[in-house]
Amino acid sequence: MNLIVDVGNTFVKFAVYKNADLIHKISFELSEFKKQYQVLKTEFPNIKSAIISSVGRLSKSQIEIIKEDIDVIELSYKTKLPFKNSYKTPKTLGVDRIALVSASVNQFPDKNVLIIDAGTCITYDFITDKNDYLGGAISPGIRLRYKSLNNLTANLPLLDTNQPKTIIGNSTESSIHSGVVFGVIKEIDGVVDQYQLKYPDLTVILTGGDAKFLSNQLKNSIFANSNFLLGGLNFILDFNSK
Amino acid sequence: MNLIVDVGNTFVKFAVYKNADLIHKISFELSEFKKQYQVLKTEFPNIKSAIISSVGRLSKSQIEIIKEDIDVIELSYKTKLPFKNSYKTPKTLGVDRIALVSASVNQFPDKNVLIIDAGTCITYDFITDKNDYLGGAISPGIRLRYKSLNNLTANLPLLDTNQPKTIIGNSTESSIHSGVVFGVIKEIDGVVDQYQLKYPDLTVILTGGDAKFLSNQLKNSIFANSNFLLGGLNFILDFNSK
Repeated sequence: MNLIVDVGNTFVKFAVYKNADLIHKISFELSEFKKQYQVLKTEFPNIKSAIISSVGRLSKSQIEIIKEDIDVIELSYKTKLPFKNSYKTPKTLGVDRIALVSASVNQFPDKNVLIIDAGTCITYDFITDKNDYLGGAISPGIRLRYKSLNNLTANLPLLDTNQPKTIIGNSTESSIHSGVVFGVIKEIDGVVDQYQLKYPDLTVILTGGDAKFLSNQLKNSIFANSNFLLGGLNFILDFNSK
Repeated sequence: MNLIVDVGNTFVKFAVYKNADLIHKISFELSEFKKQYQVLKTEFPNIKSAIISSVGRLSKSQIEIIKEDIDVIELSYKTKLPFKNSYKTPKTLGVDRIALVSASVNQFPDKNVLIIDAGTCITYDFITDKNDYLGGAISPGIRLRYKSLNNLTANLPLLDTNQPKTIIGNSTESSIHSGVVFGVIKEIDGVVDQYQLKYPDLTVILTGGDAKFLSNQLKNSIFANSNFLLGGLNFILDFNSK
């Protein structure tokens, strides 16, 4: 049994895999880490290996708690990966992007895949049908756009995410909703179109916190829930255990 | 002779018009306001009317300096405008957007016009061939996107605006450049396409600080320099003097 520890900006996730099957998942705040880990160990005493994917907020001592019992891989640019990494600055490639690319290699091997992760940032990651990861792009996510219009300008209000009815906003609020939400949709559709010019057989995966909100408004993409990234982490763990 | 006072976020502009002709223009910091106004009055003693377009940083006393000598219109939602304003929240419609729409009515009367102002924010403003202003959208501008990626996330660097070579960034820096710059281009092209579905004869005006940087990368638009907005302000002033 494998334990996946995914430490995001807001929550920590534990996921337990039996081979390729996700059998348990829980999400909690970082402050509950020790307590939740003890509960998990009681429930799943047979966990043998773990992988930790963290953007950096997990402390040494929290990692040591797991290491006491289990073989642990801390995912980083040094980890052996199931794809060729052609990124020129691998040290600064986020572990979440590494996990997504691994998930793609696992689920869509030998395909040209563009993975779009619509979260705090929108990340675009492209991997060729030769399993060669080339890179992609990073742009501000939906919330970040709303926030930046408020934080970094003088007069605009901070709004909650809302689906605009039409592209022509007839008030300041509906203008902001149109600019942010249609802006993101047009950006993603346009980027996908440009990739498809070069890779007509492109597979497009849409994931991340805003994926559901965006999915039925985008032209062609496969919606992947948050288990997609967890599956990628499990795949890396298995790949390193062999 | 007309004086146009355009108070932006960073600079103040004085522009002098003789009828429809711009005959003098100067840009300076707000702290120099009084000195620059005195120089201007010596040079152009025949100025009879002025219009002030300010996002709010000009003080009462600075406005009074001009009012001593000249008839002054302070542009606001109450000003009589050369178009029908169908915006539902006219009080919160920025004076810069009012000026751009007026400029469009002046230069492209009886046309369906989408004005895109690529500055701190990207504003989209649409006016029909019946001179009916319907509204538009507001999204973060290029610098705002770079800044938000740095300010509002944990790990990303603040970069200077730079034209990415390809859409697939192969480093964190080139990924950010691709995400921001191509993101803006795809957004604008996509928004223009959507308007053109409904208004095939659409005229697209591109203006603002980033217009030059963007203009040769966008599909179909007419580049307008910063005098476009000044001309709009002069048009409002003449419209109110009649």
